[in-house]
Amino acid sequence: MPAPEIPGQPPFPSNPLSVDHRNEGRFSVSWNHRLRTSRDTLDPSNPVLTDLLPHGEGPVRMIAILDRGLVEARPELPAQVEHWAEANPTLVRLVGEPLTVNGGEECKQDFDVFQQTARAINERGICRKSFVLVAGGGAVLDAVGYAAASAHRGVRVIRMPSTTLAQADAGVGVKNGINAFGKKNFLGVFSPPWAVVNDTNLLTSLSDRHWRSGLSEAVKVALLKNPDFFDTLCSVAPQLRSRNLDTMEHVVQNTARLHMDHIIEGGDAFELEIARPLDFGHWSAHKLEQMTDFGLAHGEAVAIGLTLDLAYGAMMGLLPESILRRTRRCLLDMGFRLSHEAMNNHETLLEGLREFREHLGGRLTITLVQDIGRPIDVHEIDLSVMRRAIEAIQKADINESSRAG
Amino acid sequence: MPAPEIPGQPPFPSNPLSVDHRNEGRFSVSWNHRLRTSRDTLDPSNPVLTDLLPHGEGPVRMIAILDRGLVEARPELPAQVEHWAEANPTLVRLVGEPLTVNGGEECKQDFDVFQQTARAINERGICRKSFVLVAGGGAVLDAVGYAAASAHRGVRVIRMPSTTLAQADAGVGVKNGINAFGKKNFLGVFSPPWAVVNDTNLLTSLSDRHWRSGLSEAVKVALLKNPDFFDTLCSVAPQLRSRNLDTMEHVVQNTARLHMDHIIEGGDAFELEIARPLDFGHWSAHKLEQMTDFGLAHGEAVAIGLTLDLAYGAMMGLLPESILRRTRRCLLDMGFRLSHEAMNNHETLLEGLREFREHLGGRLTITLVQDIGRPIDVHEIDLSVMRRAIEAIQKADINESSRAG
Repeated sequence: MPAPEIPGQPPFPSNPLSVDHRNEGRFSVSWNHRLRTSRDTLDPSNPVLTDLLPHGEGPVRMIAILDRGLVEARPELPAQVEHWAEANPTLVRLVGEPLTVNGGEECKQDFDVFQQTARAINERGICRKSFVLVAGGGAVLDAVGYAAASAHRGVRVIRMPSTTLAQADAGVGVKNGINAFGKKNFLGVFSPPWAVVNDTNLLTSLSDRHWRSGLSEAVKVALLKNPDFFDTLCSVAPQLRSRNLDTMEHVVQNTARLHMDHIIEGGDAFELEIARPLDFGHWSAHKLEQMTDFGLAHGEAVAIGLTLDLAYGAMMGLLPESILRRTRRCLLDMGFRLSHEAMNNHETLLEGLREFREHLGGRLTITLVQDIGRPIDVHEIDLSVMRRAIEAIQKADINESSRAG
Repeated sequence: MPAPEIPGQPPFPSNPLSVDHRNEGRFSVSWNHRLRTSRDTLDPSNPVLTDLLPHGEGPVRMIAILDRGLVEARPELPAQVEHWAEANPTLVRLVGEPLTVNGGEECKQDFDVFQQTARAINERGICRKSFVLVAGGGAVLDAVGYAAASAHRGVRVIRMPSTTLAQADAGVGVKNGINAFGKKNFLGVFSPPWAVVNDTNLLTSLSDRHWRSGLSEAVKVALLKNPDFFDTLCSVAPQLRSRNLDTMEHVVQNTARLHMDHIIEGGDAFELEIARPLDFGHWSAHKLEQMTDFGLAHGEAVAIGLTLDLAYGAMMGLLPESILRRTRRCLLDMGFRLSHEAMNNHETLLEGLREFREHLGGRLTITLVQDIGRPIDVHEIDLSVMRRAIEAIQKADINESSRAG
């Protein structure tokens, strides 16, 4: 008996070996990206957080996960979260006490925070339409976010980044993940948060180092996208160093917005293609973090990485040296150190190029700028010139430090 | 000194507490979904696999990961993969020997296969533009797929499903994951594969049980979407039971295609909204699998789950009883058993409704059909009627068995 013919489908060919019924199609998935900047967002009179919750469907279940470092700096935070939820019983039901997890890069070194998050989502009955509110630095957002994106294949996450770096950069991104096999962010997923709430007041309790740390990403995104913003950063760098909160809010907000616009308008939010212009300065930054056992914070490493790639670009005649000089001045005025003894190990540092290529895949793509606001992709690096650039950076920093001191 | 005004951005309001700069945008990500049906796809003369690889960019790196059960049934498989790659040196470079991993539902019960996959991707230098070729049953595709979707936030995966169930259903889906906290697929992500290659010849080495198992998903998708296909299934059920390969290929191909069309045309591939019509019959199926410690295969449980929900629908007057009768006859002709002693534990089974709701989130949504090809969503279940439906199913099966015997 021959195989039956199913209406609308081709009949079987006589020779089954030649069967090759192609079927192919393209589909899209869409997300909203929501960014809010405010202060005292847990004050029940501030509507920013509650406005983000679904209205008219009864209260959503929510768990709060807080970065231990943040809770140590702000012991009142768990009670504030509970108080905010209690004040909005028609919109939100906080399930259980806020969970405090270890923060900093260490929380990405294993599955501990991932597992704590997944377990809480399971035990407290958080479903795909329920919420995880996570407040903390970029590392906690990354690890909690990966677990929240995996549990039930993704529950809704409101990120409340607590550092300048996380508010300006990681918090508004669509990446989540942890480190594995000694490689930063080796395991993770692209998963847009439900919303990002940048509460500027959270920045006041930061150490000077973490206050400063997000500013190198601001310089990076300004170099790539906006000459006016770059000029502004150069002029307000001393104010930023002296911890002017209004200025910082303005800078963080503009950086986050440029980053967000890149995701929304860039056409490749999940980086399925090649170009990753926001990785400017990052190949060496990631490697330096790893080489210093994360003694260098991400933002500190990015400040060095940007300067290094600009120095390389200037030596190669790809960009005017004035950009390098202005960027160095700006970063130094912000308080960054622009070299590190780990850079003396040129060959290990240069392995970062290979690892960077391997992480992205395909051929090497390094983003530089030919002028401020005009990024270019470079696919080959002259290693001897890069070695000279490393040496130049190390020396320039010594000169600069002695001048400053 | 006032905060600087950045061109194109609103100036700072005078009262920082009123700061609430909204920013919101929508973005989309697109994927190609590629499905191929063929035979002897590892034969170097068959172009189906190589046609899926990028051409003109030099060979892509690839690792092959094989289901142990498949390799035991086909010991020649690893050599075939190597031979295929060696015959196409300009397109593919197989890195290392094919990796064999444990299969079956057990491989989803912990992180072992996930970790083996992630480690191989790391050690063998697989990047985002490189490939994982994974051949096996649905469980291996799920666990390997979750790891491959996580490593570097996603490397390219070609799935070669080796069971009727995986070829017709899971293989063509966009879900990956493992079980956790006693819940099926608790951890996972949506991540479309680069391509799905259904090699019909792989089905010949299946046990009768696994040969049959995919057919309940065929019945399900026919009930939801295509009355003609349902008629065909009813008429060819005995041929399918007697292992006619051409007929099976046709049925698998049509089922996979209907599933794929649902993903491409359904508008909600990542299930960000509520409706999940393909879950018809699945609330009890998932629970029965868990209650029997996966002694019931997924397809076997789905056959029961479909019948149960149709019986409930008939009792509620939502659908004509003839659909229930025809579906039962079709499934019995295929060789399915339509009850299980685990069903005697009504209350535990009914917990599946709660778990199902919790996994999806929001209010309960159960898909039934009001007629063949006409799905409806039901948001409330009358538990006393459902208990009666369970009892009826258990009795009908006994009658049916005694009639058959």
